[in-house]
Amino acid sequence: MKVNRSEKIGSQNVIMDGATGCSVKWLINDNDGAPNFAMRQFVVEPEGHTPKHSHPYEHEVYVLSGNGIVLEGDHEHPIVAGDFVYVGPDEIHQFRNTGTGPLAFLCMVPHIPEGTPVKTLPECEQTGRD
Amino acid sequence: MKVNRSEKIGSQNVIMDGATGCSVKWLINDNDGAPNFAMRQFVVEPEGHTPKHSHPYEHEVYVLSGNGIVLEGDHEHPIVAGDFVYVGPDEIHQFRNTGTGPLAFLCMVPHIPEGTPVKTLPECEQTGRD
Repeated sequence: MKVNRSEKIGSQNVIMDGATGCSVKWLINDNDGAPNFAMRQFVVEPEGHTPKHSHPYEHEVYVLSGNGIVLEGDHEHPIVAGDFVYVGPDEIHQFRNTGTGPLAFLCMVPHIPEGTPVKTLPECEQTGRD
Repeated sequence: MKVNRSEKIGSQNVIMDGATGCSVKWLINDNDGAPNFAMRQFVVEPEGHTPKHSHPYEHEVYVLSGNGIVLEGDHEHPIVAGDFVYVGPDEIHQFRNTGTGPLAFLCMVPHIPEGTPVKTLPECEQTGRD
């Protein structure tokens, strides 16, 4: 068993094309013995966003605090604390902070084999085109 | 993609030997297309607890609100909002509310094949005995 406080875990800036003002903490990972999936906590600063991107694995997301939107392709869903989001494999998605404080959410992912491709879309590109 | 508000999801009482004052909402499951694991939200009322039990699959837990303890065998770890817990396969564990308000937490589990055994220990039994 591992019991810890998320505030004690160091965060890393998300360095990725299309990411602005995002940091991530890995709370539970395969290093802890977790055999199937990982728990991560993201914080997106006001006006920040994750990349508009897709990948062949799912996300299971729970919003902890703040105000934002999740883009499903080009469709915006508003999100607040207590909302949850399932993002299926290969769905184009992006999380954006639309509030004045940090947007914090958990994002669980299955363990991802190294080299798994992530497709990032430029901000100005229409989604759904290749 | 599925986006929803946890407060809109109906909860079910946890009917299980050793469970008192516990309810669960299934937020994301295989019915939503989730291929690997499920997201559940538990609420344990004051003086309530989950069973003292073990099973051959892991839990990944994030505490949303309230005050409680998680038992690792007979060892008590205090938990509050922002804490996270990894429970490995076959570890004896129990969540107890020790506060005056509800104890709420997310508990993610891999999809569990029907018939997977769960071993429940009576409250008065020493853990580690068969």
